[in-house]
Amino acid sequence: MSVLVVGSVAYDSVKTPFGEVDKALGGSATFFSAAASFLTDTQLVAVVGEDFDISDLDFLRERGVDLSGLDVVAGETFRWKGHYGYDLNEAKTLSTELNVFETFDPKLSEKQRKAEFVFLANILPELQLSVLDQVESPKFTVVDTMNLWIDTKAVELGEVLSRVDMVVINESEARQLAGEANTFRAIERIREMGPKFVVVKRGEYGALLSAHGNHFFAPAFPLESVFDPTGAGDTFGGGLVGTIARNGRFDEATLRQGVVVGSVLASFAVEKFSLDRMRTLKWSEVVARYQKMQALTRFDTLTIE
Amino acid sequence: MSVLVVGSVAYDSVKTPFGEVDKALGGSATFFSAAASFLTDTQLVAVVGEDFDISDLDFLRERGVDLSGLDVVAGETFRWKGHYGYDLNEAKTLSTELNVFETFDPKLSEKQRKAEFVFLANILPELQLSVLDQVESPKFTVVDTMNLWIDTKAVELGEVLSRVDMVVINESEARQLAGEANTFRAIERIREMGPKFVVVKRGEYGALLSAHGNHFFAPAFPLESVFDPTGAGDTFGGGLVGTIARNGRFDEATLRQGVVVGSVLASFAVEKFSLDRMRTLKWSEVVARYQKMQALTRFDTLTIE
Repeated sequence: MSVLVVGSVAYDSVKTPFGEVDKALGGSATFFSAAASFLTDTQLVAVVGEDFDISDLDFLRERGVDLSGLDVVAGETFRWKGHYGYDLNEAKTLSTELNVFETFDPKLSEKQRKAEFVFLANILPELQLSVLDQVESPKFTVVDTMNLWIDTKAVELGEVLSRVDMVVINESEARQLAGEANTFRAIERIREMGPKFVVVKRGEYGALLSAHGNHFFAPAFPLESVFDPTGAGDTFGGGLVGTIARNGRFDEATLRQGVVVGSVLASFAVEKFSLDRMRTLKWSEVVARYQKMQALTRFDTLTIE
Repeated sequence: MSVLVVGSVAYDSVKTPFGEVDKALGGSATFFSAAASFLTDTQLVAVVGEDFDISDLDFLRERGVDLSGLDVVAGETFRWKGHYGYDLNEAKTLSTELNVFETFDPKLSEKQRKAEFVFLANILPELQLSVLDQVESPKFTVVDTMNLWIDTKAVELGEVLSRVDMVVINESEARQLAGEANTFRAIERIREMGPKFVVVKRGEYGALLSAHGNHFFAPAFPLESVFDPTGAGDTFGGGLVGTIARNGRFDEATLRQGVVVGSVLASFAVEKFSLDRMRTLKWSEVVARYQKMQALTRFDTLTIE
């Protein structure tokens, strides 16, 4: 089964306490695809400017990602500048230049319209709706969003949420979206907005899945140094939706596996700047870390009566 | 096997977004004992003033807690006033009146000196050292501490740490103690200070055990409303150390069970003000929630090769 992602391909300038990079490959669709490509056929839909060095995506092409949906248009590629302090949970955005992304209006090809698994990365809700209008009969649709759209595009975002199966969202944004300080109540409010499945990303504290009212917790893989958290959330999404597409179903066992695969992939993504770690990552390394995640969370049945 | 706890018995005045109580039973030794008494014989050592209504502890006596180590002396009982905002992870202390606690100098009885499992609740490090000097040949010793002693009693606290088997500590305090922003590095630094076992309390994100370099994560039990977080950490400690004492060993399986039992007990403690929920709690309710914790964290072996 194949997965379609619509999002950004960008150049990032990132500064962390451990170093900095300028004009490094980034973007939600890029991180998502790098992760999902370990699991399933992936089609990427995004736009870049004429300044974009297309060879930056060679590693994705080699992993079988279908890049025919990447439009190259006149103008400059989306640029994001941000920095992180020692608390690596939160990025401070220094500047966002939408550039060619400002007029992005995804038109899906015949093949893309037939996608069975769809990930709407964090873009303008109107564009997410346009993609939902174009896909013919998806088996499973997933959306990511952010505080900016919760503040400024509540109606459009509400329509998106009413039409998707799953939302993947940061914890603070889940609380904001629901207007609830308690995460578990927030999840219930969000489920009332439409998505049957809610996945809350908690940064260094892992992720939380709510499926049919059942919760599942996965910790973040313990790392002694997080180098650059940029793209962790989209990498997580790629692992999760890639696993769902790979298995071709979204039963609870698959979703739980997907959350752990996503967490593991994200734990690699943050070990180097940009997509550098994802370029060299091998599936056997993912499997090894997945097994460690089992060891990290296992405990016996209570023997005290 | 029996456990000895040395700490405070106090009257708390607490305000949360959901209500307030004045002069309610509190104190680290109280919460610890209420939890540990489900698991093992518990001896409490603390001091209260003449204003203390000893019948407040009847429920502990009924559960078999040995209160012979509770000194009643002239003066007033330790008072703590605090409040919590909607972010229930952090208490704001409004006032602390040490009162009779100021001259607390625990003298252990013959029986108390023979305790095999010892929990040094968060009191002055000098007093913790005095207790360590008095116990004869404990099998397992555990210490809790706080930012105040890290700041003002670094030398004494360092000596305590060099002499105990386990430290149970809040995450922010672990980072402060170690001078490390990364929790996993902080744990390594703390292990170098002495304790072979480090347990990091992460509030709503659960707890993390480091034993012989292996990590274990337990989430907090999901609650739609946390009423009053006061005492959650000591309740957790009581469940953990109580489990160790009950099993009479501290192999990794026991420690993991103990962390989960502690998390479950703490999840009950926060459902009502003061110790109100602990007064009525039944062990069968703890077992049921423990089983839910297994369901909340279980995931399959990865089937994707």
